[in-house]
Amino acid sequence: MSEAKVTYVDGLQFVGEAASGHAIVMDGDIEVGGRNTGTRPMELLLIGIGGCSGMDVVSILKKKKQEVRGLEIKVNGQKAENYPKKFTDIDMEFIIRGKNIAEEAVKKAVELSMEKYCSVKATLEGSAKITWSWKIVEE
Amino acid sequence: MSEAKVTYVDGLQFVGEAASGHAIVMDGDIEVGGRNTGTRPMELLLIGIGGCSGMDVVSILKKKKQEVRGLEIKVNGQKAENYPKKFTDIDMEFIIRGKNIAEEAVKKAVELSMEKYCSVKATLEGSAKITWSWKIVEE
Repeated sequence: MSEAKVTYVDGLQFVGEAASGHAIVMDGDIEVGGRNTGTRPMELLLIGIGGCSGMDVVSILKKKKQEVRGLEIKVNGQKAENYPKKFTDIDMEFIIRGKNIAEEAVKKAVELSMEKYCSVKATLEGSAKITWSWKIVEE
Repeated sequence: MSEAKVTYVDGLQFVGEAASGHAIVMDGDIEVGGRNTGTRPMELLLIGIGGCSGMDVVSILKKKKQEVRGLEIKVNGQKAENYPKKFTDIDMEFIIRGKNIAEEAVKKAVELSMEKYCSVKATLEGSAKITWSWKIVEE
């Protein structure tokens, strides 16, 4: 069982915390009555899929003895036009920086995350078509 | 289009930021090599569904001239046992505190969020069965 508690502060500001003990401020756009003091709830899904897959990819590349110096995941989400405006498409780009990184290792790491391990991806793909690509930046 | 960028720091620590401009630290459990400096990615989904529906409920209750003094959303997620361990069930409890809050207004606000407006709920329900309840605490 995984638990979270979300508490209203004021305006559209909420603070969420979960079992790991860390708190996150969420808020709405100024145009809809928020004060933009925190992340939008829908943004948390994109940040979550990036973090989840990033942890997988870094762990697998380390096991494969790759010298990773940097990893960035760019996530783009497309929402439906009509309410409830769910995510219909999410595209992810993994950018791996390092020295002599093996292309095959990166390919395998990203595939293992996307097709086997990433819990957030597996949850979101019930609604959104998820696509991905990766590139290596030698440095 | 909704965008996020997630950047690796070290260990299993990542920082995610999205278009609204707020950053969130994510990290893994100590048992799996993290340092528990931030939220787990899967927790962000539970916090997100709480924040999303909370903003709806507060907005609707205000329009209905209800004197809301507090709102808390407790979210419990059940994961599949096997990898990728996606969420299979999410239960939400809305606890509304206030003075002379009309039961019918709360019922309607929660239903409108769950069945019409909440984008996070609509995205997650592709994978997880989502249930909810609510209670009013008079104060």
